[in-house]
Amino acid sequence: MTDSLKTPSAKLGLPPGSLIHVGDVLETETRMSVIDYSSGHLEKTNISNIDDILKYRDSDSVTWLTIEGLANVEIVQRIGEIMDIHHLVLEDILNTNQRPKFEEYDDHLFIVLKCLLVDEDEDFDVSYEQISLLVLKNFVIMFKEKQDDIFQPLQKRIKASKSKLRTLGTDYLTYAILDSIVDQNFVLLDSLDETVTILEDRLLDSEPTKELLHTIQKLKREIVAIRRYISPARELLSAMLRSDSALIGDSTHLYFRDVLDHTLRVIESIESYRDILTGLLEIYTSSVSNKMNEVMKVLTIFTSIFTPLTFIVGIYGMNFVNMPELKWSWAYPVLWGVFIIIPLGLFVYFKKKKWV
Amino acid sequence: MTDSLKTPSAKLGLPPGSLIHVGDVLETETRMSVIDYSSGHLEKTNISNIDDILKYRDSDSVTWLTIEGLANVEIVQRIGEIMDIHHLVLEDILNTNQRPKFEEYDDHLFIVLKCLLVDEDEDFDVSYEQISLLVLKNFVIMFKEKQDDIFQPLQKRIKASKSKLRTLGTDYLTYAILDSIVDQNFVLLDSLDETVTILEDRLLDSEPTKELLHTIQKLKREIVAIRRYISPARELLSAMLRSDSALIGDSTHLYFRDVLDHTLRVIESIESYRDILTGLLEIYTSSVSNKMNEVMKVLTIFTSIFTPLTFIVGIYGMNFVNMPELKWSWAYPVLWGVFIIIPLGLFVYFKKKKWV
Amino acid sequence: MTDSLKTPSAKLGLPPGSLIHVGDVLETETRMSVIDYSSGHLEKTNISNIDDILKYRDSDSVTWLTIEGLANVEIVQRIGEIMDIHHLVLEDILNTNQRPKFEEYDDHLFIVLKCLLVDEDEDFDVSYEQISLLVLKNFVIMFKEKQDDIFQPLQKRIKASKSKLRTLGTDYLTYAILDSIVDQNFVLLDSLDETVTILEDRLLDSEPTKELLHTIQKLKREIVAIRRYISPARELLSAMLRSDSALIGDSTHLYFRDVLDHTLRVIESIESYRDILTGLLEIYTSSVSNKMNEVMKVLTIFTSIFTPLTFIVGIYGMNFVNMPELKWSWAYPVLWGVFIIIPLGLFVYFKKKKWV
Amino acid sequence: MTDSLKTPSAKLGLPPGSLIHVGDVLETETRMSVIDYSSGHLEKTNISNIDDILKYRDSDSVTWLTIEGLANVEIVQRIGEIMDIHHLVLEDILNTNQRPKFEEYDDHLFIVLKCLLVDEDEDFDVSYEQISLLVLKNFVIMFKEKQDDIFQPLQKRIKASKSKLRTLGTDYLTYAILDSIVDQNFVLLDSLDETVTILEDRLLDSEPTKELLHTIQKLKREIVAIRRYISPARELLSAMLRSDSALIGDSTHLYFRDVLDHTLRVIESIESYRDILTGLLEIYTSSVSNKMNEVMKVLTIFTSIFTPLTFIVGIYGMNFVNMPELKWSWAYPVLWGVFIIIPLGLFVYFKKKKWV
Amino acid sequence: MTDSLKTPSAKLGLPPGSLIHVGDVLETETRMSVIDYSSGHLEKTNISNIDDILKYRDSDSVTWLTIEGLANVEIVQRIGEIMDIHHLVLEDILNTNQRPKFEEYDDHLFIVLKCLLVDEDEDFDVSYEQISLLVLKNFVIMFKEKQDDIFQPLQKRIKASKSKLRTLGTDYLTYAILDSIVDQNFVLLDSLDETVTILEDRLLDSEPTKELLHTIQKLKREIVAIRRYISPARELLSAMLRSDSALIGDSTHLYFRDVLDHTLRVIESIESYRDILTGLLEIYTSSVSNKMNEVMKVLTIFTSIFTPLTFIVGIYGMNFVNMPELKWSWAYPVLWGVFIIIPLGLFVYFKKKKWV
Ligand SMILES: [Mg+2]
Ligand SMILES: [Mg+2]
Ligand SMILES: [Mg+2]
Ligand SMILES: [Mg+2]
Ligand SMILES: [Mg+2]
Ligand SMILES: [Mg+2]
Ligand SMILES: [Mg+2]
Ligand SMILES: [Mg+2]
Ligand SMILES: [Mg+2]
Ligand SMILES: [Mg+2]
Ligand SMILES: [Mg+2]
Ligand SMILES: [Mg+2]
Ligand SMILES: [Mg+2]
Ligand SMILES: [Mg+2]
Ligand SMILES: [Mg+2]
Ligand SMILES: [Mg+2]
Ligand SMILES: [Mg+2]
Ligand SMILES: [Mg+2]
Ligand SMILES: [Mg+2]
Ligand SMILES: [Mg+2]
Ligand SMILES: [Mg+2]
Ligand SMILES: [Mg+2]
Ligand SMILES: [Mg+2]
Ligand SMILES: [Mg+2]
Ligand SMILES: [Mg+2]
Ligand SMILES: [Mg+2]
Ligand SMILES: [Mg+2]
Ligand SMILES: [Mg+2]
Ligand SMILES: [Mg+2]
Ligand SMILES: [Mg+2]
Ligand SMILES: [Mg+2]
Repeated sequence: MTDSLKTPSAKLGLPPGSLIHVGDVLETETRMSVIDYSSGHLEKTNISNIDDILKYRDSDSVTWLTIEGLANVEIVQRIGEIMDIHHLVLEDILNTNQRPKFEEYDDHLFIVLKCLLVDEDEDFDVSYEQISLLVLKNFVIMFKEKQDDIFQPLQKRIKASKSKLRTLGTDYLTYAILDSIVDQNFVLLDSLDETVTILEDRLLDSEPTKELLHTIQKLKREIVAIRRYISPARELLSAMLRSDSALIGDSTHLYFRDVLDHTLRVIESIESYRDILTGLLEIYTSSVSNKMNEVMKVLTIFTSIFTPLTFIVGIYGMNFVNMPELKWSWAYPVLWGVFIIIPLGLFVYFKKKKWV
Repeated sequence: MTDSLKTPSAKLGLPPGSLIHVGDVLETETRMSVIDYSSGHLEKTNISNIDDILKYRDSDSVTWLTIEGLANVEIVQRIGEIMDIHHLVLEDILNTNQRPKFEEYDDHLFIVLKCLLVDEDEDFDVSYEQISLLVLKNFVIMFKEKQDDIFQPLQKRIKASKSKLRTLGTDYLTYAILDSIVDQNFVLLDSLDETVTILEDRLLDSEPTKELLHTIQKLKREIVAIRRYISPARELLSAMLRSDSALIGDSTHLYFRDVLDHTLRVIESIESYRDILTGLLEIYTSSVSNKMNEVMKVLTIFTSIFTPLTFIVGIYGMNFVNMPELKWSWAYPVLWGVFIIIPLGLFVYFKKKKWV
Repeated sequence: MTDSLKTPSAKLGLPPGSLIHVGDVLETETRMSVIDYSSGHLEKTNISNIDDILKYRDSDSVTWLTIEGLANVEIVQRIGEIMDIHHLVLEDILNTNQRPKFEEYDDHLFIVLKCLLVDEDEDFDVSYEQISLLVLKNFVIMFKEKQDDIFQPLQKRIKASKSKLRTLGTDYLTYAILDSIVDQNFVLLDSLDETVTILEDRLLDSEPTKELLHTIQKLKREIVAIRRYISPARELLSAMLRSDSALIGDSTHLYFRDVLDHTLRVIESIESYRDILTGLLEIYTSSVSNKMNEVMKVLTIFTSIFTPLTFIVGIYGMNFVNMPELKWSWAYPVLWGVFIIIPLGLFVYFKKKKWV
Repeated sequence: MTDSLKTPSAKLGLPPGSLIHVGDVLETETRMSVIDYSSGHLEKTNISNIDDILKYRDSDSVTWLTIEGLANVEIVQRIGEIMDIHHLVLEDILNTNQRPKFEEYDDHLFIVLKCLLVDEDEDFDVSYEQISLLVLKNFVIMFKEKQDDIFQPLQKRIKASKSKLRTLGTDYLTYAILDSIVDQNFVLLDSLDETVTILEDRLLDSEPTKELLHTIQKLKREIVAIRRYISPARELLSAMLRSDSALIGDSTHLYFRDVLDHTLRVIESIESYRDILTGLLEIYTSSVSNKMNEVMKVLTIFTSIFTPLTFIVGIYGMNFVNMPELKWSWAYPVLWGVFIIIPLGLFVYFKKKKWV
Repeated sequence: MTDSLKTPSAKLGLPPGSLIHVGDVLETETRMSVIDYSSGHLEKTNISNIDDILKYRDSDSVTWLTIEGLANVEIVQRIGEIMDIHHLVLEDILNTNQRPKFEEYDDHLFIVLKCLLVDEDEDFDVSYEQISLLVLKNFVIMFKEKQDDIFQPLQKRIKASKSKLRTLGTDYLTYAILDSIVDQNFVLLDSLDETVTILEDRLLDSEPTKELLHTIQKLKREIVAIRRYISPARELLSAMLRSDSALIGDSTHLYFRDVLDHTLRVIESIESYRDILTGLLEIYTSSVSNKMNEVMKVLTIFTSIFTPLTFIVGIYGMNFVNMPELKWSWAYPVLWGVFIIIPLGLFVYFKKKKWV
């Protein structure tokens, strides 16, 4: 039951709700960790058996369970049994090609989001991780595709005994998690900004090469993908704000509105970069044309200067018996005058046309 | 009454509701098969006379009747009489140029969808089959244009005696059918992805040929068609979710929402491919320009190197009596120096301009 | 009172509701015909005096009055008096630059539509006819700009004594008329499809001529006009479906929904053709660029082969006294070797660059 | 208090509601004229003192006051005092950069519109005049930027004692005024149509000059401006139709709907012209490319014919001692044959490539 | 606690509501000034300790506190304590990458806007300042990023003892502040108009240089940014008009509607400039093509005139023994005739093709 399929189409013909992991396997091992806290109490442990969560299920403290790595399908299935989760939800958790969405059930909320991470050292390579959240009364279960440090600052804040988090419920924890994910987008925007600036400078300074074009197009496509993953978050957060679920306290609404605000800012910035890249493409295209124009001018100047001169020297290379000029002793020096005057005249003409 | 017309316009002037098959005939024979099941019972037979369905009509078990091939109009008409279906619905079933849609009647639902199939072995050739569904209390009638294996996995699941399907009604069967159809789109997306990747590689590696352009345009057009057939499914499923028909049980809503989710993912992917193809077209156009630029440079380099040299040799080919250089014995070797220096100078100039 | 003005602006300054025909006069004569029917009764006559309709006004049978040709303004005015129609409606009937629309009055409905006809024998020439309908309790008045056979099939169906039409009211007749008009659009789509296919073949086979460009642009513009005339029909039919006028029976709603369905299909097809034409234009533009590229290559090959050779022959055409090669007896044959080797070398170079 | 500022930004820092004329001064003098009428009474006078309107204020007859020229701010201020108008409304009247809009106050309506006038004799030069209307119970005050004849036909109709206008209130007068303004747009459309047709013919017949491009762009920009001024009128009239102000009688609604209809027609036509101009621009661009292609062909033909010939004659201009052909007496005539055969061969080649 | 971070992403991992200034520091010092007024009273002072505002908090007069410079975070935090403001609001005030927005709280309103300032002396360099407003019952707190003179005219109006402002509450003061900010946009539009006009003239007069292209693109991008900052103001003002907060009096609604009106005008103008810049780009692109066409013509004319002549002179430069023309004494003069006739013929040909 730990099979993993690469594409949704591979699942063709299986009964709905079949629990099989669909998508690239980013982590073969599954790590499970629990943070259980209340104002006066904090416990942080890694667990190896999923049934260990049973003891946290009915306590009043807030429990945050993190599952990193989705290849072990049995864990997800067992969580479904313990927490009484619909098998369609479990299926969505295991399929990492999900659209970001928010679903409200009687006793839990289901949230799917994409976390966009950009490598610090490389040329704007974005990696996408799907994060699913099950929000219950005193329990938040987070499913991640791989192990990383995104939530370390948040965990540190929980550990601080005077933290606001410690006194509040799962709704505030959910907010803090969403906020951490959306904040990653600002890192991405900074990196995008830097990449576009460099691209722009290269476009202004150097030749319009095929590589430059491919970089622009690659970036344009990356932006289309980013937009596709981020923009449903607007919908998701609006739905959360509209929801009247008992699992979201009134005082937490303000916080979700703040995350929505951040999301809107990110989306608008992404749109701006699309416009900017369209502009860069127009500059590229014009550069190629300008370049060709320049080449054409050089060709035309050479041709128009030397073609008439070559004709003239051809005349006096003819072997006619009767060519009086040939015998005139000033002919050759006078011709040199002509060889100087014609290019000068053409130079003036091209100067006037602003070709040189 | 088994006439078949190719285009809607051929039906011009016929009274509304005239039962005539409109569209390409994909199957001249009509095959009828029945699956009748309940939790403790399963029957699967092919029938040759449509009146054979009468015995299933009033039983409590779920009956799934599949009609493959629409050329035999009498069958559709007889079903209409037996099940009391409006003749406009029958007409829509027989016209395979339908838009995907959902219609709610007092005692039945009517659903039209397009099933998109892509040939595995060929260059992204998409074939479109219209599938119509009549959903009654204990009866689902499916009309297909041709015989194929799309629903074989579903039928296999029904046969399994412990299948969830066996205990549920026609609404869940309808969901399972829609799910099977939408799943085909993921196969199509995989094939599209492969086609676009190949196209992209060819664009980067080889010359920008006219054939490449036509392939891009053909694909772009195919995507417009795909989008046109798939995107109304969003509307269709939203209408089903909004519907308060007694034929759709509350617990099945979650399942239809899941199909809608898949459809949204497909539509968004299709949109992305449209953007990608626009990008490929821009690369193509730029490649042609870059190519021309390169040709122009070669021409200009040849011309600018040899034109001045040809002028110089022309000078000393002149037949003037008074040309002192001609008699100077170092003249010819010196000229060879000039023949070497001029191209070298131009080479430096072109190097600086990054033409070579 | 039979004045006719060509453009709306010509009516400038006239009081609103002035009854003057505005638009091209497509028919100078006005033909009036009446079909009066009920389940057991049918009468079809041409009338010459509009007051002849008075006898049909108060009978229970359905009366369908057709006015073909709008130049005779007195007829429209007299109908307004007999049927008590608002003068703004009469004005709209007489102005053939109307937008398709639906208006609901206390005791009648007013519908304006465009009927698009395409000549069978010619190159996609579309003609537009405005058709106005006044729908009263037992009376339908249809105003057409010219005489044609669009409604002949419908009239034939009425004549059939067992026709469904004979037992139903003016709402069903209205539906049948709208259906006849919308069906014409499918003829238009067939013709458009054929035209575009031919255009496409010409684009692939032959040179990109200026004529081809103009044909594409002409078609693009025709599609913009078609879309402009057809797309308000969607709004019109939606408004009819929303209407709760007593003049539209509940059972007729299904039929109007069917016409709306057809209209949506037509609009979507038209949109697709716009995309296709944009694609053809892109192919055209690329063809011109490819063409130029090809010309440039020929030019460059000729120039680069012969320019160096011409320089070489020029060298040995110089008249220097001291040119030892001239006297060497193998010089000339060796030079011929050079004349063969240089083009061969360049040929290999161009072959490698895929220019030849 | 008769200051006038050119741009809105010049008013920076002034208290809101400061009465200063903002915009170009189209008329330095202010003309005031009054038409006062009821079914049995008509009075038409010019007034020089604004306080003269006091006697009309409380009478039951309809009074139409026209102010032409806005430079005299005191008049607008005094009207505000007499009629008790909000100072923000007065400010809007005096700022001629207003967006068309409709505002409903307790005892009056405020309407701002743009009237678009096109010079008959010139190349589509559109002038824009702002017209503001204050509609009170028995009083309509119209503010115009300049003196012209737009409303002369309407005034003539009022003078006719049997006119419908004479028996109706200020709502109908308002309608008649709006109708007159919207009718001007049809004149503009006729002129635009003519201009575009001429432009199109020039594009097909003559060279693609820079002037032609600028004319297309100028027209495109004019259309953007026209659309910007006309399209808010749709909103304006919809708001009037939705309004339940006692100042607009039920029977007048039909008339406002008619004006809305005309406005929609105008907007759609304007949109079409935008599409047409985009098409013309595409034709222009293609013409330039075609042109260049043609020039390139001529260049290539000349070069490829004469370059090999020049090489050949160069060969026999060489001064080698050992060149046996030079002494062969048929050599020269045979060479002439070559001079004829080579161009013929190339001609056949170019013919095959469809270059000539 | 006076740390300042440059980008939102730098705040990654901090608890929500952490008070840290995010954005460029435009002013290191913080200036605080108070204007306290009622109809009979006016006080204007600078304060150095934020606790000085305590005495104004509970008085009935209107107090307008201006904080210029956000680097001193403690001030914002203390205001939050004094006025009981949510820490998310304080956080938004300190983050100057905010989207313009309006938020309604129980006892205060929160408004964020961007103020766009354009340098008078330079090439359309726009600077953006974020202005946040906290509107309480008798208190308005304004946070600005830097010190400037935008509100000096407004302050002058307050000082005038008969000013309307003096008798009205904080809602009217809020309006006056918003109006001042929106008015700055008209200054920007004037500057933009001037810049575009100059750009256009340069495009028509001079060569299409790379610099010109970059200026167009830079302006296009600036307009995208301006639009992004201004267009949310429409939403903001609509939300204020819909709000039923007790803090906005009924009579002030008219004033906010007026500001919305101005904003709509600004947005529409900005849209127009985007269209105009697209047009300029099209002119630029066409200019480059036209230019190349012109160069090509010159090249072709030179080549086609001199290539055949050079061939002819080459013929008579050949050294064949048997060339009878060489001895004919009229040959040379006749050839000169040919040298004149050929160019003349070509000139006529090019004249006909309109190349010269
Ligand atoms: Mg998307
Ligand atoms: Mg944006
Ligand atoms: Mg944008
Ligand atoms: Mg933007
Ligand atoms: Mg844009
Ligand atoms: Mg853009
Ligand atoms: Mg579609
Ligand atoms: Mg999308
Ligand atoms: Mg996308
Ligand atoms: Mg897209
Ligand atoms: Mg896009
Ligand atoms: Mg794109
Ligand atoms: Mg339209
Ligand atoms: Mg469509
Ligand atoms: Mg489309
Ligand atoms: Mg489509
Ligand atoms: Mg499209
Ligand atoms: Mg397209
Ligand atoms: Mg393009
Ligand atoms: Mg606008
Ligand atoms: Mg339109
Ligand atoms: Mg349009
Ligand atoms: Mg249109
Ligand atoms: Mg269009
Ligand atoms: Mg178009
Ligand atoms: Mg924006
Ligand atoms: Mg606009
Ligand atoms: Mg605009
Ligand atoms: Mg626009
Ligand atoms: Mg435009
Ligand atoms: Mg464009």
